[in-house]
Amino acid sequence: MSHPIPPGTRDVLPDEMRELRELTEGLRGTFGEAGYGEVWTPALEYETTLRTGDASGAGAGYRLFDEQGEVLALRSDMTIPIARVVATRLGEAEPPLRLCYFGHAYRAAERRTAELREFLQGGIELIGLPGAQGEAEVIALTEDALDRAGLRRHRVGVGDGTLFDRLLDDADVPEEARESLVGCLSSRDLVGLERRVDQLGLDPTTRERLVSLPSLRGGVDVLDRAGGAVDALRELHELLAERGVADRVIFDLGLVRQLGYYTGPVFEVYDPAVGFALGGGGRYDELIGRFGRPLAACGMALDVGRVHLAQAAEERLR
Amino acid sequence: MSHPIPPGTRDVLPDEMRELRELTEGLRGTFGEAGYGEVWTPALEYETTLRTGDASGAGAGYRLFDEQGEVLALRSDMTIPIARVVATRLGEAEPPLRLCYFGHAYRAAERRTAELREFLQGGIELIGLPGAQGEAEVIALTEDALDRAGLRRHRVGVGDGTLFDRLLDDADVPEEARESLVGCLSSRDLVGLERRVDQLGLDPTTRERLVSLPSLRGGVDVLDRAGGAVDALRELHELLAERGVADRVIFDLGLVRQLGYYTGPVFEVYDPAVGFALGGGGRYDELIGRFGRPLAACGMALDVGRVHLAQAAEERLR
Repeated sequence: MSHPIPPGTRDVLPDEMRELRELTEGLRGTFGEAGYGEVWTPALEYETTLRTGDASGAGAGYRLFDEQGEVLALRSDMTIPIARVVATRLGEAEPPLRLCYFGHAYRAAERRTAELREFLQGGIELIGLPGAQGEAEVIALTEDALDRAGLRRHRVGVGDGTLFDRLLDDADVPEEARESLVGCLSSRDLVGLERRVDQLGLDPTTRERLVSLPSLRGGVDVLDRAGGAVDALRELHELLAERGVADRVIFDLGLVRQLGYYTGPVFEVYDPAVGFALGGGGRYDELIGRFGRPLAACGMALDVGRVHLAQAAEERLR
Repeated sequence: MSHPIPPGTRDVLPDEMRELRELTEGLRGTFGEAGYGEVWTPALEYETTLRTGDASGAGAGYRLFDEQGEVLALRSDMTIPIARVVATRLGEAEPPLRLCYFGHAYRAAERRTAELREFLQGGIELIGLPGAQGEAEVIALTEDALDRAGLRRHRVGVGDGTLFDRLLDDADVPEEARESLVGCLSSRDLVGLERRVDQLGLDPTTRERLVSLPSLRGGVDVLDRAGGAVDALRELHELLAERGVADRVIFDLGLVRQLGYYTGPVFEVYDPAVGFALGGGGRYDELIGRFGRPLAACGMALDVGRVHLAQAAEERLR
């Protein structure tokens, strides 16, 4: 008899579970020592809540009706639910707030991709500390947590989630042409991006900026080549250097995060052992305001299962 | 602005979360020291899997369609998924198997009841150790875990999930009359039970057994008054007494558990601080066989949130 589980889900047996528990306890300990208190929110939210956070509805891969006919959805990340908590249950708490979480999130996945539909996220949210100060703390704490988990080769990619939109604004690119350009960028298709930009009939300087800036990737010198458009990242680099954690950072001006609530720098965590990002995050200064309490915020979510893969690969190298 | 969460779900803030983590770490430690290895299964299962375990479909309160049009359901307990794992992924492992788990389960609840729709379960499954030996280990470990969590006044109710059916068989009660009788018993409506039994026109001795046995509740003397029908519980009592853990047990011959897979003794855990059972379980010798690997088994699931309430009440008493 065969009794399959849904594609993109996993059973975890005791040997692996022991390692995963050790990893999550370690991450929780690191976050806790840094003053981040853990919260839990329900896996099921009203779909309207998730759409308040992200109008694209990316946050509602699995929907169902409850007994009252309300549409519920399985959360696809913890950031939107925590924004709701900060605006409601924690509405009186004095910022900055430092919160962390460990919980499963759910995303619809194509049957043939390696993406999981259920995955364990562990992450942090730093609320009420605007600008580079907040972002530097989040990146530094992420690096610290991964160091202490035994990773040696991880890198944090840092981009600016607003940069490409600003370039499109400067170039007066019409709204209807933008989606396919952003699509090329999210799928890292720089050849396709160049072809589509060429069809816009822009002047050579503008065309060059639209094509070349998103392809810039590397150390801090990348920022020098990009000019004034990336001042926010330059300030962030200075703070990271002061904290002594700038070495692991790769500036990536083509980095685009899929979720719709980012308003500034965005992050992704990589490790050579794993073919996917170990996690990601960024600044989202408007999200909590959508729930009624305008507060700057940024955060980072790690995919605990992928961090565990990187950890295991690191141990094999020793 | 109001941004409610679905009724029967909860946000947990850092102070409470810290206590809950401490409680679950303690339970996990107790289970682990006793040789119970933790497993994780997906919150989403194919509905057919849950129905294989419990044909009544009690295990599928929340259903949804995935991208392929398959019907998925949120698990309503961990016992059916673990039965699946034991028959499939652990199909070659030599019994007895000792497994534990910590995960949220989901049940549809009436809007006005205090029942949660999402609740954290922590529990154990002892697979391949039949009869009173297995049940005694599960009850003793549950008591140990609650002792170590600081509870002082908890009790374990023990009944026999097959007793009432056997009495109905002996009395030749027709199938169509049984549902309402069992319904009275599950809702502890002994007056209603008596009225319905009186309508069956049974001889006085048979009538008396049907009405009086389910009302027996108390110490081991209850078993003496019930005669040969409860030999299995008498053997269990002897083993619990040998382990020195019989004092907390209340024999309750009217105890009926709602889930359809129990085949012998059933358990419920109580504490005077909490109006609901802290947990429950029992013997389910046919469940794993439904997934293709016939193995005797029994287990216990604790509602971690309710154990936490009892723990907090106990601390206030000190």
